[in-house]
Amino acid sequence: MLLSGGLDSTVVLAHALRDGFRPMALTFRYGQRHAHEVEAAARIARYSGVPHRIVEIDLRATGGSALTDDVAVPKDRRADAAAGIPVTYVPARNTIFLAYALAWAEVLVAHDIFIGVNAIDYSGYPDCRPEFIAAFERVANLATRTGVERGAPFRIRAPLIGMRKREIIRLGRALGVDFAATTSCYDPDATGAACGHCDACQLRRAGFADAGIVDPTPYQPASLTPR
Amino acid sequence: MLLSGGLDSTVVLAHALRDGFRPMALTFRYGQRHAHEVEAAARIARYSGVPHRIVEIDLRATGGSALTDDVAVPKDRRADAAAGIPVTYVPARNTIFLAYALAWAEVLVAHDIFIGVNAIDYSGYPDCRPEFIAAFERVANLATRTGVERGAPFRIRAPLIGMRKREIIRLGRALGVDFAATTSCYDPDATGAACGHCDACQLRRAGFADAGIVDPTPYQPASLTPR
Repeated sequence: MLLSGGLDSTVVLAHALRDGFRPMALTFRYGQRHAHEVEAAARIARYSGVPHRIVEIDLRATGGSALTDDVAVPKDRRADAAAGIPVTYVPARNTIFLAYALAWAEVLVAHDIFIGVNAIDYSGYPDCRPEFIAAFERVANLATRTGVERGAPFRIRAPLIGMRKREIIRLGRALGVDFAATTSCYDPDATGAACGHCDACQLRRAGFADAGIVDPTPYQPASLTPR
Repeated sequence: MLLSGGLDSTVVLAHALRDGFRPMALTFRYGQRHAHEVEAAARIARYSGVPHRIVEIDLRATGGSALTDDVAVPKDRRADAAAGIPVTYVPARNTIFLAYALAWAEVLVAHDIFIGVNAIDYSGYPDCRPEFIAAFERVANLATRTGVERGAPFRIRAPLIGMRKREIIRLGRALGVDFAATTSCYDPDATGAACGHCDACQLRRAGFADAGIVDPTPYQPASLTPR
């Protein structure tokens, strides 16, 4: 399973464990400005008792995103799909992540690949949509020895894809997720405190508010003005 | 375009240049035992006058292939698809390569991604087949900002996919390819001389023989017994 250290993938991890899967977690240090999420993923994997692999890849060399380049992360943007794909989109990121996950899954003789994408309360990233997930599942089964020899067994599982953020948070609470261990902010300060105003912070804050659950995230003091 | 330093991708490069494309070549040092192909790719890109990028990724950490693990490369195997997928299959390799190519293409505002796969005189690798290429093209157009905003412009171009090896070699000769600069062997010796007996060598030797063209490859002396 892909584990970013964010809220959604952490809920997916808890969900998969609840369903009896034995997940192996895969995280990428890809040159993201918010590389603190990798440490969060490591802590979450550790307390969840799942094996964890961190793969180092260099998407900064490719660039094309405010998450990898010296481009400002937009603040207080209207953070929904109707507002268009923002500059924080990373070209082909989920395709690359799923390709690595597929390779590892095939070697592990695992057939279920979990990803925490969501296409409801999200920033409009194309590689979070159901049609992308379905298309990649088809690739997975055509690309591999396992797909050919075992009758297309790979499933790309995206259990949160049609949920509201508040539903994801409520599910996480029901599953006992430690939200304080998760991190969403694209642009944290040196202490790890969240900016409160990037798309990821906005979606997170709104989700906790809508769910009626306290968000334990340490936000930067200046961000605590009412939204 | 994906450029391995082998025969097929080098012919694709010459073909794309002849058709008026301005290719950018992408090669992976992925932990392959035959990493000498990366140096071949660099020489071929240089003499062809195309920009070249080498990406370092670690597929040895994932394993599952005789090309990345300490597993013997089969020799004098029946090298065709009917013989089953051999242990030189690398899990999800072309999916990973195309995912990186897609990311780079999107940043370059390029829409044509070339790959030298062949599904006729080949070892039966699933990620060389037309159905895989078509499925990945669909992923490319669904995964990306470019795909969403520009009406699915990405094309995965595999011009050799339906050709016999001898036809590829004849095409290469017509295009002026320097075959001596290309390398196919999975298991060369320290001098770079080809083993002559792995799948890749067998397909190459048979192709040159069928085409009636001299193969300039330096083979190891012991390999020069008649096939």
